[in-house]
Amino acid sequence: MAGLQRRALLGAAGLLTVGLPLGLVPQAAAAAGSPFEAADLEHARALRERGLADRTAPSLVRELCEGIGARPAGSPEEAKARAWALQVLAALGLENVRAETFPLRIWQRGPAAARLTAPAARPLVMAALGNSVATPAGGLDAEVAWYPSLAALQAEAADPARSQANGRIVFIDERTPRTRDGRGYGNAVLARINGPVEAARRGAVALALRSIGTSGQPVAHTGATRYDLSVPRIPAFAVSVPDAEFIAARHAAGETLKMHLDLQARSGVDATSANVIAEWRGTDLAHEIVLISAHLDTWDVGQGAEDNGAGVAIASAAAALIASGGRRARRTIRLVLFGNEENGFDGALNYGNRYKDVPHQLVGESDFGAGRLYAVRSRVAPAALPVIDAMAEVLAPLGITQPESGRNQGNPAPDASVLMRRHRWPAIALSQDGSRYFDVHHTANDTLETLDTSGLPQNAAAWAVTAWLAAQSPVTFGPPPL
Amino acid sequence: MAGLQRRALLGAAGLLTVGLPLGLVPQAAAAAGSPFEAADLEHARALRERGLADRTAPSLVRELCEGIGARPAGSPEEAKARAWALQVLAALGLENVRAETFPLRIWQRGPAAARLTAPAARPLVMAALGNSVATPAGGLDAEVAWYPSLAALQAEAADPARSQANGRIVFIDERTPRTRDGRGYGNAVLARINGPVEAARRGAVALALRSIGTSGQPVAHTGATRYDLSVPRIPAFAVSVPDAEFIAARHAAGETLKMHLDLQARSGVDATSANVIAEWRGTDLAHEIVLISAHLDTWDVGQGAEDNGAGVAIASAAAALIASGGRRARRTIRLVLFGNEENGFDGALNYGNRYKDVPHQLVGESDFGAGRLYAVRSRVAPAALPVIDAMAEVLAPLGITQPESGRNQGNPAPDASVLMRRHRWPAIALSQDGSRYFDVHHTANDTLETLDTSGLPQNAAAWAVTAWLAAQSPVTFGPPPL
Repeated sequence: MAGLQRRALLGAAGLLTVGLPLGLVPQAAAAAGSPFEAADLEHARALRERGLADRTAPSLVRELCEGIGARPAGSPEEAKARAWALQVLAALGLENVRAETFPLRIWQRGPAAARLTAPAARPLVMAALGNSVATPAGGLDAEVAWYPSLAALQAEAADPARSQANGRIVFIDERTPRTRDGRGYGNAVLARINGPVEAARRGAVALALRSIGTSGQPVAHTGATRYDLSVPRIPAFAVSVPDAEFIAARHAAGETLKMHLDLQARSGVDATSANVIAEWRGTDLAHEIVLISAHLDTWDVGQGAEDNGAGVAIASAAAALIASGGRRARRTIRLVLFGNEENGFDGALNYGNRYKDVPHQLVGESDFGAGRLYAVRSRVAPAALPVIDAMAEVLAPLGITQPESGRNQGNPAPDASVLMRRHRWPAIALSQDGSRYFDVHHTANDTLETLDTSGLPQNAAAWAVTAWLAAQSPVTFGPPPL
Repeated sequence: MAGLQRRALLGAAGLLTVGLPLGLVPQAAAAAGSPFEAADLEHARALRERGLADRTAPSLVRELCEGIGARPAGSPEEAKARAWALQVLAALGLENVRAETFPLRIWQRGPAAARLTAPAARPLVMAALGNSVATPAGGLDAEVAWYPSLAALQAEAADPARSQANGRIVFIDERTPRTRDGRGYGNAVLARINGPVEAARRGAVALALRSIGTSGQPVAHTGATRYDLSVPRIPAFAVSVPDAEFIAARHAAGETLKMHLDLQARSGVDATSANVIAEWRGTDLAHEIVLISAHLDTWDVGQGAEDNGAGVAIASAAAALIASGGRRARRTIRLVLFGNEENGFDGALNYGNRYKDVPHQLVGESDFGAGRLYAVRSRVAPAALPVIDAMAEVLAPLGITQPESGRNQGNPAPDASVLMRRHRWPAIALSQDGSRYFDVHHTANDTLETLDTSGLPQNAAAWAVTAWLAAQSPVTFGPPPL
């Protein structure tokens, strides 16, 4: 609490700088022993204030959603999004703008339908999970084995002879609580990821689940699931929350539920994706990289507005703010728009393989929609923490605090996490308010119409400050504690 | 206005009877020269008051939705609904309970998907219209010819060489205003019914339209469309309102839209449906029929709660109220639950053919969901209007008025309208508040969860009053003005 108060005061001090001519900005931070030069902090504050007034991010997300739309990895639309990004990032004044391609094998959705056939006929609003295998031609019919959660399924012996799942369609009614930080999703999504394997271990013929989301609207959630070589691959899909409520009520009434599922899909289709890269070159430490990122691909539903058009817009606008600010930092600031985050992290893995020997000062990613930032958490060498504190002081007027809990245990968004963990690169997590994110995430509702873009400038401002100060830091951030 | 005031006053008088022992009910109507005996009015008022307290209708709609669910004509579920109705109506004390079967040819939905491919990729939430033909295997791709309304399409020459529709997918953006009486739907639905023929006349390859509904949720509306032998039959479907808004905005921005459509369906499948009939026999005029009705079939989405589980529950509960009231009227009161209202009125047509020589005193149908009744309009011989006025006086305490406008020009719900017009049978229209009906009608949202059942007892009470007094009337209602 004391720490929060300290930062709040500094935040208030920061606010006083708004509107003052640059030459008159109080040099309090430098005087108080900041690791940064006064002019560096002054530049960071100016980035922050310009960022808050900048409309680049709202404009970019509109172009991406309305001009390209859904852009699953390996699709013509993802390629179109790359072409757009290359053009836009060069026009925004960034350097070394390029696409780095990689081959991948993709999953493609086909027609699919599911319905309850007992105790009552009810067509279900459904979506196949990414990577789901198809049903046999003509579909399959089976009784439903209902579980309140993945844990309840796992509590049964992993033996068909001893599980009620055997020969049935397992239904997991895992609920997704609404939370600011997304932890509700973090727990619930395990049912989507591990449900098919756990169900197949117990003899199930298919896996169905309540959509991993917080909306009561009649939409179904998609997203990646996975299989395990040790058990049969069974078809997997999610149903809408209203349908899940109906199923739960009927189960609670002691009724026997039966379902018909017809799901078509293709796996292992050869395709190409790429990471789009743009830079703002550094000075004396230009070979070191400060990486800010988002992912260009989306699921094949909606328009990918929250996930991750918003992040593409935020990270791109942040890089553009830095470039238009004119002043170079010591290290190179690199924007990466990853390909195929959604179904395999191929972009992050390819990037890591390609640049594994290049020193990375920091990796970060915006991939939690368009909600406002409220927290910053690092994952850096302890010696670098004073630099993080100094960055946090510049972020404080944006309403961003550095929580005492989980200090220096930040977990960045997925691509950046992959890089942090595989390469032990330092990382920063800027936390957005995700209270409404899972109302639309991975559904047909993730469109520009449902997107609140008012928080995008605050996000872009914060990423610009963070990247520029990390690039200018007198201290190396690695190696982080993992 | 004077008339309204008169009825409002009578309504207030009627309210005074509530709670009084039956023997003390004021006999004002009879004293004022009502065509009914005082005891008849007393019985009707008792039916009304018992109806308001009766929970049969909410219970029935729950059984039908949760026990059977969607029940398209000719399906096993429609047959299951018939078996349920036969059992329930007999248990409720009705007489001559039977099903009268007829053959029909049905349309069956298959897998379907549509997406925008330009200016941006956007999968569309869509539903094939009933009777739509399939696309060629692999689907079709075409540019979109956008029209704000059916009228705008019709304003173009019906000549492919002179229409922008030629070779394109016609999109009709007909909007459905929210109205209490459903007139918004009545106008808009012409785009669904006539759109494919009008588009095909102008060379279109498919017909797409904004869902005929008032919900902004991501659901698509289905419902019957029709073809004409003179032009090619083209596939037809509706997209959700959010998708239609996107399409309209892109069109308004001057962009070229393209769409991919893959729609599978089967037409002309031989099947069987039936009308379920139950009666409360009359006395001296038992050979004359007062028909109250609803339809048992639904579209193949949702659970058919508003359309027409509510009507089945209302009409059945009304008949049961009459039977449990014990007192027989002069004419036979016949409840008919029609088969296949939704896609061809086969049930009404079959009923009419079978009973065309049987005198019908009145036909009426409840088919506008579960909203409260607010108006009564007859279509009877002028000599019978005093009887209608007397009925309206008994209905007035339910908040039901007999509007001056459209007096004796009532249009009952569809099956009853078919019978009224084909056989010139007198009819009664009881008007429900449909302000929210088209939020769910013909969509996956038409489920018990979205149904407000609180108005059902008022509906059942009114139908019981109406049917019993019509059956007891000293005056024959026909022939009506058509």
